[in-house]
Amino acid sequence: MKFELTKTFLEQIENAVEAQNVQFIQDEICPLHYADIAEILDEVSLEEAQFIYNNLDSELASEVLVEIDEDVRDRFLESLTNLEIASQVEMMDSDDAADLIQDLSEERKEEILSNVEDVEHSSDIAALLTYDEDSAGGLMTTEYICANINWTVAQTLENLREQAREIDHVFTIYAIDDRERLLGTLSLKTFLYADNQTLIKDLFAPDPIAVSTSDSDKEVAKLMEKYDLVVIPVINQAGVLMGRITIDDVVDVMREDAEREMQLATGVSEKIESRDSVWVITRARLPWLLIGLFGGICGAMVIGGFEGQLSKFPQLAFFIPLIAAMGGNVGVQSSALIVQGLANNSIKLESTWNKILKEVSVALVNAVVLSSLIFLYNFLTSEDYALCFTVSIALFAVIILAGILGSLVPMTLHKYKIDPALATGPFITTLNDILGLLLYFSIGYAFYS
Amino acid sequence: MKFELTKTFLEQIENAVEAQNVQFIQDEICPLHYADIAEILDEVSLEEAQFIYNNLDSELASEVLVEIDEDVRDRFLESLTNLEIASQVEMMDSDDAADLIQDLSEERKEEILSNVEDVEHSSDIAALLTYDEDSAGGLMTTEYICANINWTVAQTLENLREQAREIDHVFTIYAIDDRERLLGTLSLKTFLYADNQTLIKDLFAPDPIAVSTSDSDKEVAKLMEKYDLVVIPVINQAGVLMGRITIDDVVDVMREDAEREMQLATGVSEKIESRDSVWVITRARLPWLLIGLFGGICGAMVIGGFEGQLSKFPQLAFFIPLIAAMGGNVGVQSSALIVQGLANNSIKLESTWNKILKEVSVALVNAVVLSSLIFLYNFLTSEDYALCFTVSIALFAVIILAGILGSLVPMTLHKYKIDPALATGPFITTLNDILGLLLYFSIGYAFYS
Repeated sequence: MKFELTKTFLEQIENAVEAQNVQFIQDEICPLHYADIAEILDEVSLEEAQFIYNNLDSELASEVLVEIDEDVRDRFLESLTNLEIASQVEMMDSDDAADLIQDLSEERKEEILSNVEDVEHSSDIAALLTYDEDSAGGLMTTEYICANINWTVAQTLENLREQAREIDHVFTIYAIDDRERLLGTLSLKTFLYADNQTLIKDLFAPDPIAVSTSDSDKEVAKLMEKYDLVVIPVINQAGVLMGRITIDDVVDVMREDAEREMQLATGVSEKIESRDSVWVITRARLPWLLIGLFGGICGAMVIGGFEGQLSKFPQLAFFIPLIAAMGGNVGVQSSALIVQGLANNSIKLESTWNKILKEVSVALVNAVVLSSLIFLYNFLTSEDYALCFTVSIALFAVIILAGILGSLVPMTLHKYKIDPALATGPFITTLNDILGLLLYFSIGYAFYS
Repeated sequence: MKFELTKTFLEQIENAVEAQNVQFIQDEICPLHYADIAEILDEVSLEEAQFIYNNLDSELASEVLVEIDEDVRDRFLESLTNLEIASQVEMMDSDDAADLIQDLSEERKEEILSNVEDVEHSSDIAALLTYDEDSAGGLMTTEYICANINWTVAQTLENLREQAREIDHVFTIYAIDDRERLLGTLSLKTFLYADNQTLIKDLFAPDPIAVSTSDSDKEVAKLMEKYDLVVIPVINQAGVLMGRITIDDVVDVMREDAEREMQLATGVSEKIESRDSVWVITRARLPWLLIGLFGGICGAMVIGGFEGQLSKFPQLAFFIPLIAAMGGNVGVQSSALIVQGLANNSIKLESTWNKILKEVSVALVNAVVLSSLIFLYNFLTSEDYALCFTVSIALFAVIILAGILGSLVPMTLHKYKIDPALATGPFITTLNDILGLLLYFSIGYAFYS
């Protein structure tokens, strides 16, 4: 029942394509779900994908085109003529069509849209293209079902058969007034059980949860998640119903956000996938490593300033990695927690001082435990009591400092509308490394000179 | 239109509760969406929450109870009698009811279920409680709409009015045979347009995408995301329809997974939130810091082995932080990418060798760039050519080694069915720190002795 793309099947497909075996494609690939076919096209070479694609019937082909990976799709579009794309666009929902042609040149977009036969559809798509990609307007589709509040159930049903022709899933009927302003929603269930002569105005649920075209996609995701929504209506500034956003598109937004947050925390500056080219991956990873290199050079300068102490007391160098690593670890922990709290709003009502105070309390407990342990270790293994104290006091100070910085930096970024997730990765680690070293050697200087 | 919990409103609520102002609760809180009320209860103290909760009408109260934060809910349940809980359970969907009482003692569970008046409902809940929390069975609800394939549309409609009474959203009608095996699905839209005398067997779409009760919640999330599903049927080993899972529950699974992955990468070992107590947060953070401490001690031993070199050539110590930090950064980058690739299946068809080869290629490019830069820096600022070569060669080797380890460790964990995300955090950083130091000092030893 569940499709799984195995290596064996992939090889069969590649062999069939090489042998130009159209029958195989029709028998083995066409009956699959379009999402499965898209998965296959993502894995094979561009030429193989084109051969398979050309042997799909055109409605299936348009569904597959919506699902394939963006990189693959872009290369695909280059190989299709504007007329071919227009005929696919004809069959797509307006939001999918807008996503598809979005990154093409203005010239191509215009030519494709002028070749779409359904004029209303093409102007819907053109309108969607004007919204920011990351806004509710950019996410919505213009296909939805609505009913004037003055209609009866019977009138609505007749109208609905007409409207629903283009829509796969009818989740909710939107109740609008004569000026097309959204007044409320009507579930299919309520509709199904209502008497034919009842007016929509006596049936609909008022005060719908809606988003504005200019709301960010994150805002949309947050609302749909909070209110357990499957679909949400989109209105403009005047309250006029403009479209609807379904949960499947929002799930994609959530996934991308989570991946991006994770990549920032682990020092990858661009959205990449493991199947991207060596060059793309390197370009995304090198910038953070350069920050690390710069930090390392600063660290070298700090230590260089204490060269005199070091040559007399080389044991001071032993605990450089410990101090640096702990500062980094504590900083990343506390910044990541703050970033998550900011993302899911769970800390917005707490004052900054409370947050810092809590972070300092956590840091204090950790600092006491860890510096006692390292003191014990040094006390038992070495007879250098100055070293015992230097390492323990420095570790204690570094943990507290890293905890405070780890919370303050993302909160400050957030305050100035900069993405706080930037502070979770190598940036905070590097900063803590350098400050930790300065602390350690200053304390060491006090004990050893 | 959109509710936002402000500090001012929160203070008003707290004052009203203190004054036992029931009118305020009825006027200002009861008209809110249950998700908004839940948000309020999450923010106030337990006593305040109880006062508000007791003044909600019982259906609203049961909806709120489903939505509030798990910690708050657990403390809430302790303060309610079994009879009170049973009356709430009566009004909930079976899956929500099962989630609610899941963590209570076996004794309480039994007493609550025996007090639920609707016997079928209580046995549904009891059945759901037997499934693993993280499985499709644990996620599903037993409320769904089904139709025997031998029924006519008219018969189904009549039956549907009865079945749908308990269901808020009817997404799909499931077509079953006489033995209740799932044969296919029927959209409400198709149903709405069909002739009254048509048989269901002539209308339904066969080969439904379904999950088995024992499938993991991650598997369910992956399928629903891939096929853009809003609801998915759940069957048992015999193909009998057992329930359905709606996307809102899966969205919660996705969010939790993403947060957990992020926390592992940043060294937090338990699922915590920023509003948790200092003790809970410390308990989640200390284990990783202890690993860091252990790593630091190992690092000290490694450097201690080269004490002789250090006292003669203290400049060797300058670049300890650089080597350690870069090993850590590269390792975290490559392990995080592998973990994401494993999570979204995008690399499952690539062979292990290909992955390692690609990682080594990326590492090579990064290593060439970074070691050249540091060579240039050292060459220009110091006259110690041995240092120039030691640092550059060690950095080069560390980047390659960290890249390989960063991919190998998570792949190995995955192979042995251990969560590869464990390898993204402090573990891989610590390992790379120590190996990096060993490399650096070994190379330094060669140049300086």
